[in-house]
Amino acid sequence: MTALDAFADVVGPAACLTETHDIEPYSLDWRGNFNARPTAVVKPASTEEVARVLAVAKAADLAVVPAGGRTGLCGGAVALANGPASIVLSLERMNQIRDIDPQDFSIVAEAGCVVETVQNAAAEAGRLFPIQWGAQGTAQIGGMLSTNAGGIRTLSWGNARDLVLGLEVILPDGRVLDDLRRVRKDNSGYALRHLFIGAEGTLGIITAAALRLAPELKRVETAFIAVPSPDAALALYGRFRESGADLIGFELAARYSMELANRFGPVRVPLALDAPWYVMAEIAAAHPSVPLRDMMEETLGTAMEAGDVLDAVLAESEQQRLSIWKIREDLPECTRQGGPTVNTDTSVPVSAVPKFLNTVVSEVERRWPEGRIIAVGHAGDGNIHCSLQAPEGWDQGRPAWAARADGFESRVNEIAVSLGGSFSAEHGIGQSKRHAMVTHKNPVALDVMRQLKATLDPDDRMNPGKVLP
Amino acid sequence: MTALDAFADVVGPAACLTETHDIEPYSLDWRGNFNARPTAVVKPASTEEVARVLAVAKAADLAVVPAGGRTGLCGGAVALANGPASIVLSLERMNQIRDIDPQDFSIVAEAGCVVETVQNAAAEAGRLFPIQWGAQGTAQIGGMLSTNAGGIRTLSWGNARDLVLGLEVILPDGRVLDDLRRVRKDNSGYALRHLFIGAEGTLGIITAAALRLAPELKRVETAFIAVPSPDAALALYGRFRESGADLIGFELAARYSMELANRFGPVRVPLALDAPWYVMAEIAAAHPSVPLRDMMEETLGTAMEAGDVLDAVLAESEQQRLSIWKIREDLPECTRQGGPTVNTDTSVPVSAVPKFLNTVVSEVERRWPEGRIIAVGHAGDGNIHCSLQAPEGWDQGRPAWAARADGFESRVNEIAVSLGGSFSAEHGIGQSKRHAMVTHKNPVALDVMRQLKATLDPDDRMNPGKVLP
Repeated sequence: MTALDAFADVVGPAACLTETHDIEPYSLDWRGNFNARPTAVVKPASTEEVARVLAVAKAADLAVVPAGGRTGLCGGAVALANGPASIVLSLERMNQIRDIDPQDFSIVAEAGCVVETVQNAAAEAGRLFPIQWGAQGTAQIGGMLSTNAGGIRTLSWGNARDLVLGLEVILPDGRVLDDLRRVRKDNSGYALRHLFIGAEGTLGIITAAALRLAPELKRVETAFIAVPSPDAALALYGRFRESGADLIGFELAARYSMELANRFGPVRVPLALDAPWYVMAEIAAAHPSVPLRDMMEETLGTAMEAGDVLDAVLAESEQQRLSIWKIREDLPECTRQGGPTVNTDTSVPVSAVPKFLNTVVSEVERRWPEGRIIAVGHAGDGNIHCSLQAPEGWDQGRPAWAARADGFESRVNEIAVSLGGSFSAEHGIGQSKRHAMVTHKNPVALDVMRQLKATLDPDDRMNPGKVLP
Repeated sequence: MTALDAFADVVGPAACLTETHDIEPYSLDWRGNFNARPTAVVKPASTEEVARVLAVAKAADLAVVPAGGRTGLCGGAVALANGPASIVLSLERMNQIRDIDPQDFSIVAEAGCVVETVQNAAAEAGRLFPIQWGAQGTAQIGGMLSTNAGGIRTLSWGNARDLVLGLEVILPDGRVLDDLRRVRKDNSGYALRHLFIGAEGTLGIITAAALRLAPELKRVETAFIAVPSPDAALALYGRFRESGADLIGFELAARYSMELANRFGPVRVPLALDAPWYVMAEIAAAHPSVPLRDMMEETLGTAMEAGDVLDAVLAESEQQRLSIWKIREDLPECTRQGGPTVNTDTSVPVSAVPKFLNTVVSEVERRWPEGRIIAVGHAGDGNIHCSLQAPEGWDQGRPAWAARADGFESRVNEIAVSLGGSFSAEHGIGQSKRHAMVTHKNPVALDVMRQLKATLDPDDRMNPGKVLP
């Protein structure tokens, strides 16, 4: 029996794709930067099938690339061009919600569940699954966890990692690590789940997770705010936090990002674009009697008197609120339409955000004056995405712009790291940031990571060429 | 130069203890169950000194037992009786707060900082360091993290692990893993910090941590409540959570625990002891305009109408509030005075708490009818400590009671695990729960833990005989 027959034997012929047109969608990464054809795409439907697929892969000496919704931005879910012969192991058929326990504020979902499906299941049970980002309608739980996804709702509830109570993982040798308990407290030895969260499938395959839910939000107030500078934005952030309101979203965007939204997005920005920076802020309460509108107006009022706010508009309806967040969510797509772009994904301590942005902006003005700076991000987390876009009418294509902007990414990373930050905040490493691991990662940390990888995956079978340089 | 001279050379002669009377306090664990004399107690004052002490220990083939405030309950911070020759490496002199950044809601503290010192530093900066438990005036940050301490404030802010932004760790080979960044988002490879948190010093020594702070609480409402059953307590918990109030404490205690408090504690319980179970509940708000008293009264009122609450008293002053929590914090000491006791530390999903308690109670009534059951714990986390105390007037000593109560611990652990819970919720494993690791831990998980230990500490030098069976 060939390996392909053996895979088909495990998952059924219809779930073992070998034809080019079937495999193509699994070959190209979301951003279109990486393209490699796997030997097959194998879609197991159960934990046991995943384990058996790994055993077949081992026998055939094939590498295994785990894939979910494949919305990752670093090329982590596609095979390696010029790499070892690989299969893509797609979890999409493992899409059951195994359990939801509103009293326990928990849900157990398989890796192939679409994130939005879990959000909806929680909402139907009167609960909130708080992770939220643009790709949530496509991204899956396994990918969300394997990349430790962030997004616009991490201020109160943390990143994907922070929502995990327990995991079910298939180890590279096919053994099942069943640690799917729903307990809040468990100090019985090393916290193995955290090794696999954010490991991008290089240490094993997450097949299911027990996840924490939050109380549903009874009231929300959302504002779209013009501010004169990153320093003013930070001061406004401080005012919200000092007030004691529960700030659940605080996004910052440079004017040019908002111009892109107006030009390419479906929703008009609700303020004139005469300010250099804009903030989207949201406060919330799970209890209906919290005077949320007063809190919002008081904070914005005192900030305006102090000169930290130039103008602001409050969402007067759920429709207006969704419009504000739609502007934010569509920004990656609007950016893409605006022209070739070089991207970064850095974080710094929240208090260092103004210094970070001021340094990046002045560096761009000096070295790439024709470039247009897109700065947008989760300022309340210190995680700003700075991108450099080709000038209006650039007709030399993406590679030429990447060449022209050479040094931008490494310089932004350097600035972030020099301020005590990270060169990879929420998108992960995948293929596209491995070079930055060499430059910026603490060598002792890198060495320990390599030791762990060699221990758990001595054949380097799991997603080779990802994460570790 | 002897090893002792070499240690003294690194840390100074005054910080290298070799005399019996100096070493004694470091030989006996908090509960008095484990006693072993180390070769020396070495107290480095800096990260570099810790690394050099490890190098000397390696050259002399001495095991290293890291110690902080030594308030752990499982014998993790004392040397192993009949084990290899060991030093206790006490972090007590590394007690500096290196940085506090209120704007960033973060603090960087060395391992030897007393937990209360960090709480106070945060409070002075208008912030809250939310971890809280009875031993906080003695326990140190390094021990808090190495045991992933829980306590009575984990409902909103999580366990110690959840507060860590970055760590500085000395690896067993003396290398410094400097990952002390204060960023909220960092997906640059594996989350190494989580390996060392909760590892009880078996994989390396935590020397400093960057920790998350929360907004200070502007208002708090606290109630002491009589309930008819664990089911009613769970229903009350559900009402608080459903209401949307921010529930920051929810402790449950069986009547006999409260009798111990009245008998041995400094504070009288504020209700008559005619109910079988009692709850201490606290809701809080960081914003002064949240109508907290109304929220509390409404929840208790509807719960009383439904029969889930028998009686309740609200704290009318900060003094009364502190008294309620003093009852809770002193319970371990009151328990000790009540007679010989066999203890457990289990957790289950929150929704399974009533079934867990009902099963334990009926099992005790059947098998140990003369025993007095102390059940007290963090019901909102599913973490209840069940203990079996010898009958009034027991004069045969602790070992005889332990023999009589033989099987209690393993049966409680078994009940918790069968309900999807953990046999070790917040105290860790240390020496005293290693046997339970053999019985109850998933063998694949155990095997992976052993692999990690062998990889990072191939000489088994770091705290041998702890955590892993």
